[in-house]
Amino acid sequence: MVNVEHETAPEALAFRDEEGNVNPTFLASVSEAIADGNAENLRRLAAPLHEADLGALIEALDYDDRPRLVALLGSDFDFAALTEVDDAIREELLESIPNANIAEGVRELDVDDAVYILEDLDEADKAEVLEQLPPPERVALQRSLDYPEDSAGRRMQTEFIAVPPFWTVGQTIDYMRETEDLPDTFYEIFVVDPAYQLIGTVPLDRLLRTKRPVKISDIMNEDQHLIEATDDQEKAARLFQRYNLVSCAVVDEAKRLVGVMMVDDIVDVIEEEADEDLKALGGVKGDEELSDTIWYTVRSRFPWLFANLVTAIVAANVIHLFEGSIQQMVVLAVLMPIVASIGGNAGTQTMTVTVRALATQELRRSNTWRIIRREVAVGICNGVGFAIILGTVAVVWFGIRDLGFVIGLAILTVLSVAALGGILIPLTLNRLGVDPAVSSGPFVTTTTDVIGFFAFLGIATLWFGLS
Amino acid sequence: MVNVEHETAPEALAFRDEEGNVNPTFLASVSEAIADGNAENLRRLAAPLHEADLGALIEALDYDDRPRLVALLGSDFDFAALTEVDDAIREELLESIPNANIAEGVRELDVDDAVYILEDLDEADKAEVLEQLPPPERVALQRSLDYPEDSAGRRMQTEFIAVPPFWTVGQTIDYMRETEDLPDTFYEIFVVDPAYQLIGTVPLDRLLRTKRPVKISDIMNEDQHLIEATDDQEKAARLFQRYNLVSCAVVDEAKRLVGVMMVDDIVDVIEEEADEDLKALGGVKGDEELSDTIWYTVRSRFPWLFANLVTAIVAANVIHLFEGSIQQMVVLAVLMPIVASIGGNAGTQTMTVTVRALATQELRRSNTWRIIRREVAVGICNGVGFAIILGTVAVVWFGIRDLGFVIGLAILTVLSVAALGGILIPLTLNRLGVDPAVSSGPFVTTTTDVIGFFAFLGIATLWFGLS
Repeated sequence: MVNVEHETAPEALAFRDEEGNVNPTFLASVSEAIADGNAENLRRLAAPLHEADLGALIEALDYDDRPRLVALLGSDFDFAALTEVDDAIREELLESIPNANIAEGVRELDVDDAVYILEDLDEADKAEVLEQLPPPERVALQRSLDYPEDSAGRRMQTEFIAVPPFWTVGQTIDYMRETEDLPDTFYEIFVVDPAYQLIGTVPLDRLLRTKRPVKISDIMNEDQHLIEATDDQEKAARLFQRYNLVSCAVVDEAKRLVGVMMVDDIVDVIEEEADEDLKALGGVKGDEELSDTIWYTVRSRFPWLFANLVTAIVAANVIHLFEGSIQQMVVLAVLMPIVASIGGNAGTQTMTVTVRALATQELRRSNTWRIIRREVAVGICNGVGFAIILGTVAVVWFGIRDLGFVIGLAILTVLSVAALGGILIPLTLNRLGVDPAVSSGPFVTTTTDVIGFFAFLGIATLWFGLS
Repeated sequence: MVNVEHETAPEALAFRDEEGNVNPTFLASVSEAIADGNAENLRRLAAPLHEADLGALIEALDYDDRPRLVALLGSDFDFAALTEVDDAIREELLESIPNANIAEGVRELDVDDAVYILEDLDEADKAEVLEQLPPPERVALQRSLDYPEDSAGRRMQTEFIAVPPFWTVGQTIDYMRETEDLPDTFYEIFVVDPAYQLIGTVPLDRLLRTKRPVKISDIMNEDQHLIEATDDQEKAARLFQRYNLVSCAVVDEAKRLVGVMMVDDIVDVIEEEADEDLKALGGVKGDEELSDTIWYTVRSRFPWLFANLVTAIVAANVIHLFEGSIQQMVVLAVLMPIVASIGGNAGTQTMTVTVRALATQELRRSNTWRIIRREVAVGICNGVGFAIILGTVAVVWFGIRDLGFVIGLAILTVLSVAALGGILIPLTLNRLGVDPAVSSGPFVTTTTDVIGFFAFLGIATLWFGLS
């Protein structure tokens, strides 16, 4: 056997490891190239990356290495990667990049990505960047930026293919083959009248299956789903989700076609929305990110804890009322947190279901009463169950028979009230236009704590004839 | 002015009202048609609906009207609507439909939709339905059903277009124009070798922009993202999200192309996943739906409340230890729930952020230590803040100066421990392979309650020389 030594090409480093994390060896090579200021090596490693991977690389790098990566890559840095990183990281990074380079970088992007990057800049920087763009790009970006935050207009692409209905399939395909400046990606073409009003859409697969002489008007879908540019992005997301869309036309107030929303942006909206609700229920602001500073996090979490402190003090006042009873029968102090705790947890269960059903629009006027009845019935059933369990525990633990009745009655009361509060509080907040995910928690906890302490200590005071 | 009476066509009823809910007038007409057994009217109203709208209609109807709608519509009932309704409603409805009709109905569907409907049937019914299908459909469905639950194989479409690399664009377009049996919707075509291994993909827009004589191999994307049929659907969702895909090839263990996943299914997976985490954190099972019965809901919520009862009893035992101190100084009973409550809320904040970061894979081995340090630092900062606030409140309220020091020290302790528990508990559960969203809550609450009561009552006992 002959052993031949090959001049092997340097083995390409995989960007991600088995688990989908950034490969530590790859990361180390990048950090080294940055430390050495070796632009050539860095370019070889980072320039071919997909924008999502480049974004993940930026997030994985040390704080100080991020702006140096951008500087070293120069014009090879793909600004689309900035749409893939945490907000805090993007904002920090943009501050370190000269406005002229930002202008250079966003020129290459689709309008929706460029807007995503520019919208977080302060007004002065934004104006300076826009000024350095050629008029057509500047006008397109400015128009998108003029739409309200979180509106469909901010997330739409302004490049799309629109053809008149009397064209044939052949003409349309030839037009696409000969036009240089087509959008990067598209899944359907739009059919418009001379006033640019949308009259139909043709999915690309249908265009490909149809013979050249057929007219566009004969194969277009006439019933379309439309998004208005001023619509909230969540409304657009519901439409995509409901009708399984991959792209959707965006129109202005005169119903003229102005852009197209793509499903990949919608996927981000859906994830963001669920994320915000989840964090809000846990008492954390929706925009909190792992990359936030300690001080920012402290200030962001403080208000929720403070609201809960106020509710806890309200509940403590109820206990204060019954100090005499507790002094006479100190076991009440041992058991009272149990009553309040189960009440709080049951209230949270109902509240969670209600908040989610409101967000997904499953809870509607038509089924509200049915759901309220169901929740109260569930509360009463679990109330009876836990009254028996906890009543037995109390009797066995402290050997006082009547204590079982007292705590059982208190549990039944608090679980019924918890169910009612858990659904009525978010419903009411929602009707008042307040986000129920953010605000329901303290109200529900106050209700269950106050009712829990009051029911247990009050019933005990009466039953045992305490002062 | 002349008043002309027109013979107006009956105005088409809008299916949805302004808010996007099912239009009550439309619903009333449908209910009436069902009550009258008027199949013709019903068909006129319901048959033209999009599957999503038909699903919404079914959900809005009274319980008994649902199977009657399906029966009256007969072969005009679009079974795809069943993929758009709550699980509980689908299961009930399927029980009321004869297996022969189910077989008839699912034949018309894409494989992924058919699987979605069949997978919930019990084994006997499933076998009976499959038996009544023609062999090609049966084999395709059976193969998908053989993949594990929640795997990509269950959610893939098995119809796709695959061409050899040496074909030209023209040949490919002609093939699509002449083939009858193409998939309903597709966004890219796959390029395979003779062994059906995937060697590239061509997005439809690129096919349309390219001139007829160009070879497919010259325009295909060679670096593809692949999903294995046995992969969990959440893994597939991360891939779609990361790389902004609209469809993605699914391969078997021999890397042969077996299907394609579409982004609309992925959107559902992402929503479902966030939904499950959100509900789990609120102590509700992920599959709980508004349409569930009272008794099912009671049984589904009981275990969580029971787990919390156990943790509350553990915490009560701590209070039990200090009964003597409370009897001597009953104000401790008034203040102790405040300490436990703030600790619980702070622990929940950290836990929420941790659980979410684990789900979205933002929390990785590489940044775990940094995040633990950050959380503890946040806990200490908020601890100092609330120690001062609550200490002042206690002194002002009860006029005992030393009580301020005692409660302040207790608050600082519990908030530091809450931060540590809030991140270490979900991390540990995750390493042990337990879903942290479902199980962290009771552990975190027990920790904060026990530490809260112990710190406050313990420090008070020592400081004031009680019992």
